[in-house]
Amino acid sequence: MGEGTVGEIGEIELVSRILNILAADAVGADVVRVGPGDDAAVLSCHGDVVVTTDSQHQGVHFQVGWIGAQQLGRRAIAVNASDLGAMGAQPTGFLAALALPRSVELTWVEDLARGLAEGARRYGATVVGGDVAAVTDHISINVTAVGERPRHAAAGRAGARPGHRLLMTGWPGRAAAGMRLLEANVAPPDEAARRCVDAFREPMPPVQFGIAAVRHGLVAAMLDVSDGIALDLRRLCRSSRVGARLDAAALRGDETLAAVAARLSLDPTQLLLAGGEDYELLCAAGDSAVDELLDLAEEHGVTARVLGTVVDADEGLSVVDDGVTAPLPEGGWDPFGERRG
Amino acid sequence: MGEGTVGEIGEIELVSRILNILAADAVGADVVRVGPGDDAAVLSCHGDVVVTTDSQHQGVHFQVGWIGAQQLGRRAIAVNASDLGAMGAQPTGFLAALALPRSVELTWVEDLARGLAEGARRYGATVVGGDVAAVTDHISINVTAVGERPRHAAAGRAGARPGHRLLMTGWPGRAAAGMRLLEANVAPPDEAARRCVDAFREPMPPVQFGIAAVRHGLVAAMLDVSDGIALDLRRLCRSSRVGARLDAAALRGDETLAAVAARLSLDPTQLLLAGGEDYELLCAAGDSAVDELLDLAEEHGVTARVLGTVVDADEGLSVVDDGVTAPLPEGGWDPFGERRG
Repeated sequence: MGEGTVGEIGEIELVSRILNILAADAVGADVVRVGPGDDAAVLSCHGDVVVTTDSQHQGVHFQVGWIGAQQLGRRAIAVNASDLGAMGAQPTGFLAALALPRSVELTWVEDLARGLAEGARRYGATVVGGDVAAVTDHISINVTAVGERPRHAAAGRAGARPGHRLLMTGWPGRAAAGMRLLEANVAPPDEAARRCVDAFREPMPPVQFGIAAVRHGLVAAMLDVSDGIALDLRRLCRSSRVGARLDAAALRGDETLAAVAARLSLDPTQLLLAGGEDYELLCAAGDSAVDELLDLAEEHGVTARVLGTVVDADEGLSVVDDGVTAPLPEGGWDPFGERRG
Repeated sequence: MGEGTVGEIGEIELVSRILNILAADAVGADVVRVGPGDDAAVLSCHGDVVVTTDSQHQGVHFQVGWIGAQQLGRRAIAVNASDLGAMGAQPTGFLAALALPRSVELTWVEDLARGLAEGARRYGATVVGGDVAAVTDHISINVTAVGERPRHAAAGRAGARPGHRLLMTGWPGRAAAGMRLLEANVAPPDEAARRCVDAFREPMPPVQFGIAAVRHGLVAAMLDVSDGIALDLRRLCRSSRVGARLDAAALRGDETLAAVAARLSLDPTQLLLAGGEDYELLCAAGDSAVDELLDLAEEHGVTARVLGTVVDADEGLSVVDDGVTAPLPEGGWDPFGERRG
């Protein structure tokens, strides 16, 4: 459409355009008492409020060439919805704080707003507010997700006990492989590569499955996997004061990831353990709940597999490969460390 | 203490230091079911949820030399609490998403975290979560404020009617004057200048007054003044489909601002109308409620004055000076426009 940049149009017109896009979106309006455009948004709530925030920075979490604005909007919502799902909370509203260089095209921002609205709608919610700032350097998109869950619902990271089984949803490692393809500026050469690039661009966190798992009391502990299984499992174990023993065969179960890793000359298990950007769930559940959880996952169209067993804290974290036990590599992603590799 | 930079210490240790500072802070814990460190925070809620978000970007909203890290933390909280106050909502928790270049000193971030915790405590709440990202350019601090207010409480921007009086709290214009002193790198030469610099560095939004005013049903419309009276009054009038007639004498009532403006060779009324960064309240109230509102302000230690009258929409926005009526200058701050002046 070529309507110029956000610097040319100015804040008032920019906000008005964004509000028009968000206003077209009416799903969830029964929850929204005051929507975008006032000093704050007001949502009805009949349980506990659950809130989380996460930012996507250009040059750190994405490059403009890697992902379209609309997909980026959906992604920024998804990574936050994922945290709500891990707490068993139903999303009710999202806030988006955008920092934009003046040179950004207005049409790009409008597409981003459409993506944010679409992303919110996927989880039965809407974008209820936000903030824009003009900056000189990089685009950043901060999203806050607001949700609700029944009062005193138990879900968190501290309930894992020795003997519990560890379950994981989805295909962790694929998003990291996809990000590496994008970094290398390689057009996805086959279906496996396309799946990995899609896993990075369009994470589909199993939010409704997480909510149902908590509602049915099936999980003892659960968390969102976003920094790689190794680091996030370590977090779960630290909170629960337990150890974990993973099954190497289960870690290796993804042929798509194996094929793309081979092409990238990378270890697929390393991508799974330390890659990050998955937005899947890792949970601990009693033996008797495992089948029910796997059935529940299937009902929600969610892939899930048993990854290992919770053990005593003094056993630490290990991987068992064909009867041989080795310590789980530290790994995981540290955004302040060197480039992950 | 010279413990190095955030890049040297890495994310896990950085987050652990921040969490230690936040954990020391226990006020408001009866509301907090799950605090910082999990996938999301959980707060109890017995009314409607009220949420707002606002970012402070280095180079746009502040320079590191203008304000200490601890004060900046309090300020980032205050500007968000201000929006909750304008909606009549009691703050219950804050989220802080930090973007930090690797070169930032760890002690600076720890001071910032202390400031965030102190700021939250001022409003009877705590920092319940957040996010850190390593970036290459500027510091940004995004805060989301979560609050609650009684179900179906009426407060917003749309209730102003012709005949209502317009009230303003505090001393708008001083923060803008203080920012200009900081931009000019002038050490505040006198008490008036110090007050203006303090107004910029340490805004004290009248949150409890706003909550009480809504609870007592005294305001027909209210909003947070952050972009200058001219722009924010225009927003209130647009939402309420009314006009406004301001009294020039009331606009000129601040001798401190007048003295500093004279030193800066600026028009004090222009600073008040178009300066921004005030975080005060502008409200419309029926004639019979004005005295009660002024009393309520006094009870809360809040300065308030009558600024003018709500009129029909077709009269537009005007200023009456000694019997002569002139249109209100457009003004206000557009962050995407040229440097405000």
